[in-house]
Amino acid sequence: MNIALPEWMELVKPPQYADDESAMRYVLTLAQRNIEERTGGPFAAALVSEDHRVIASGVNLVTSLNCAVFHAEIVTIMMASERLGTWALAERGRFTMVITAEPCAMCMGAIPWAGIKRVVSCVRDEDVRAVGFNEGNKPQDWIEHYTSQGISVTRDVLRNEGMKVLEAYVASGAVIYNGE
Amino acid sequence: MNIALPEWMELVKPPQYADDESAMRYVLTLAQRNIEERTGGPFAAALVSEDHRVIASGVNLVTSLNCAVFHAEIVTIMMASERLGTWALAERGRFTMVITAEPCAMCMGAIPWAGIKRVVSCVRDEDVRAVGFNEGNKPQDWIEHYTSQGISVTRDVLRNEGMKVLEAYVASGAVIYNGE
Repeated sequence: MNIALPEWMELVKPPQYADDESAMRYVLTLAQRNIEERTGGPFAAALVSEDHRVIASGVNLVTSLNCAVFHAEIVTIMMASERLGTWALAERGRFTMVITAEPCAMCMGAIPWAGIKRVVSCVRDEDVRAVGFNEGNKPQDWIEHYTSQGISVTRDVLRNEGMKVLEAYVASGAVIYNGE
Repeated sequence: MNIALPEWMELVKPPQYADDESAMRYVLTLAQRNIEERTGGPFAAALVSEDHRVIASGVNLVTSLNCAVFHAEIVTIMMASERLGTWALAERGRFTMVITAEPCAMCMGAIPWAGIKRVVSCVRDEDVRAVGFNEGNKPQDWIEHYTSQGISVTRDVLRNEGMKVLEAYVASGAVIYNGE
């Protein structure tokens, strides 16, 4: 099967950025555009390097590519792995996954497998649940467990802006999918 | 990116089968062949219907396609979703995921998102860990949680045969990958 990012993503250039907030602003732009283009859920992600390069980015493609596992984080890991030519991203650098929402149960499991060493997230699980999405059976202690594995987590970056993106999705009338 | 199953999978025809054991025997054959062909880890999966048809099957492709998320379950969900044309597999039937090992943290999260209603597994988490693989931060209560979501789990089907497949992988000298 062929997994292609939406064509509009070509037009949203990764920014020169200096900090977590500006990286998050880029990712929120992708999530907002994903709603407007109706190419998937209100979620986006980017894998960035310590020297502020965007290695790969992705958006939720569940409904447009018809596959439940195509969350933004999974798509981004696939794109980054293809670009860097390895399943062990840590071999190529200490990368950060910037995501517009805390990871669901599946994506929480995927991030360590890819060798990602830092997570920067925007809205929280409860914000996602508040608009009707489910986060799955995620261990309560996921952040402590990440920390013990050498993965650091920075939460709530531009959380208010992230909430507006979730609200825009609800307002669009698009489907809230949860495996059914 | 293009995700293709190994060519040898074309030659391993899904069997006519009548029960969980014969479905598992097919999936173990795929896992064993995946070791011999050196196309990935010692894990395979199939999505099967209530009337005993194999909808899709997959093998672990982490090391051959260079992507940490290409566990057998994820590959199988992608192939089944493409074949059935939906992210909500439950819309097309009550499907069972037959897997050669209990799901890791990521795949445990993925199975409910795909709308799969039954899991049949072979070796246990501890068997997988015993040969050096990690299962991730998986909730202790995952089976109870599945049950509460209407997903039933049958464990230990041909577990001894499954152990032999894991041992064959170790004996092959292939890499035990865990995100590093």
